[in-house]
Amino acid sequence: MGTTQLESVQEPKYWHLKTVLSEALDSDFSVGEILPNERELAARFGVARATLRQALEQLELEGRLQRRRGVGTTVAPPRVGVAVSTAQRDWTGDGAAEAWRAVDATAAPAPSSVASVLEVDAADPVHVVRRIRTSHGQTVAAEFLYVPSSSVPELSAIDAPSGPARARAVLRELHRLGLDGQDRSVELGSARADDAKELDRLPGAPVLVVTTRYLVAGGTAALSVATYRADTCRLTFGDAGKVEISHHGPERQAS
Amino acid sequence: MGTTQLESVQEPKYWHLKTVLSEALDSDFSVGEILPNERELAARFGVARATLRQALEQLELEGRLQRRRGVGTTVAPPRVGVAVSTAQRDWTGDGAAEAWRAVDATAAPAPSSVASVLEVDAADPVHVVRRIRTSHGQTVAAEFLYVPSSSVPELSAIDAPSGPARARAVLRELHRLGLDGQDRSVELGSARADDAKELDRLPGAPVLVVTTRYLVAGGTAALSVATYRADTCRLTFGDAGKVEISHHGPERQAS
Repeated sequence: MGTTQLESVQEPKYWHLKTVLSEALDSDFSVGEILPNERELAARFGVARATLRQALEQLELEGRLQRRRGVGTTVAPPRVGVAVSTAQRDWTGDGAAEAWRAVDATAAPAPSSVASVLEVDAADPVHVVRRIRTSHGQTVAAEFLYVPSSSVPELSAIDAPSGPARARAVLRELHRLGLDGQDRSVELGSARADDAKELDRLPGAPVLVVTTRYLVAGGTAALSVATYRADTCRLTFGDAGKVEISHHGPERQAS
Repeated sequence: MGTTQLESVQEPKYWHLKTVLSEALDSDFSVGEILPNERELAARFGVARATLRQALEQLELEGRLQRRRGVGTTVAPPRVGVAVSTAQRDWTGDGAAEAWRAVDATAAPAPSSVASVLEVDAADPVHVVRRIRTSHGQTVAAEFLYVPSSSVPELSAIDAPSGPARARAVLRELHRLGLDGQDRSVELGSARADDAKELDRLPGAPVLVVTTRYLVAGGTAALSVATYRADTCRLTFGDAGKVEISHHGPERQAS
């Protein structure tokens, strides 16, 4: 918390190193290759360990490097484009190539912020469906889907009380409901312990939190809070196809 | 790069501290208030400085805290919802409440990854329009908009050769073109020096990179790479209104 002025640190040392390292990754390393250890890298580039570590953190933020405990730092593959659907196909997931898999459903009070969006009493239990999304064989997102009982009145007492079968029953009823629309927000967050475990990350890892409100007749029929791995995912929107730009392309300057 | 197993560190100390600190922010501090310094906080919560620093970094990722050089660490206001338009109103920006402001336009070769999406030769200059977006009096995004000459054939030689007037002329021609659609991706990135300066952040700060492809007759008429502040912005999608959920609500558990 010093008094350094922003102007005087426009190009800090780690930033320059990051650019140099980024070019070295392109020319000298291949995807999946393990980088030399920090001491060796610091020596090779003639920088302090602390500077090196900052540059490595930048490259991790940008999805160029992966750091895994017990493995080391490896060159990351390009980020995977994951379509954030604007259609209803969400509900029928199982089996598709980029499917959501329903893993559990319980009845529990929603977090207070969720309860207020759903316009239910904070003490009232709602259906909490847990889903996991995989893409290209990798877990990319973990979701909590909150569904008030009033949205699925036909849900039968003879359906399973919990577990994947219960989750599928809730989704089936949501599908029958027919949605009028949805709105969505995306923001940066850090992985909670339960999400981190599903995503094979440490708690606190950067994630993209996608909050979706599913609308019926002007009200909110369900609310989804989905946590996507920020290191490996690029979220795509729109039906015209994916943006095919390389994941680190936009970092380069125009002139 | 130790050999610690993921399982044994499911709830690291900084994670627990983060939760405790988060509750203290809710109950003991108000928005804009400056936190005690690191030494004092570490003593108050009985943790090492390094643990405290990790927890503060988490809270910064989640948008709960702001750290500014020369000011210290303050309690952040809730994130601002910024609509990522699916309509064409982008082009007519000036003057609207959440406007894009055209600040410059030059002719320069596009980065190679951009050139390949635009299907232009990497050596050919394209129009590079620089725009800045403000919301609630704050700069929230900085954009490079790449427009091949072939997309704006009517652009007159009597228009200004560069600067904001040139930028507005390019946007006017894009508007005349009429777009068929757009697709978009969102991913985590780190602020480049030039974007960081516009956004009043240090280079390398986490940002949300929104890449938009504007489509005409099956081709890409223009490509936008917009860098949003990840600390203060929540990107919203869809026309039905904003998701009104609190920015740190989804962090809480359902059961």
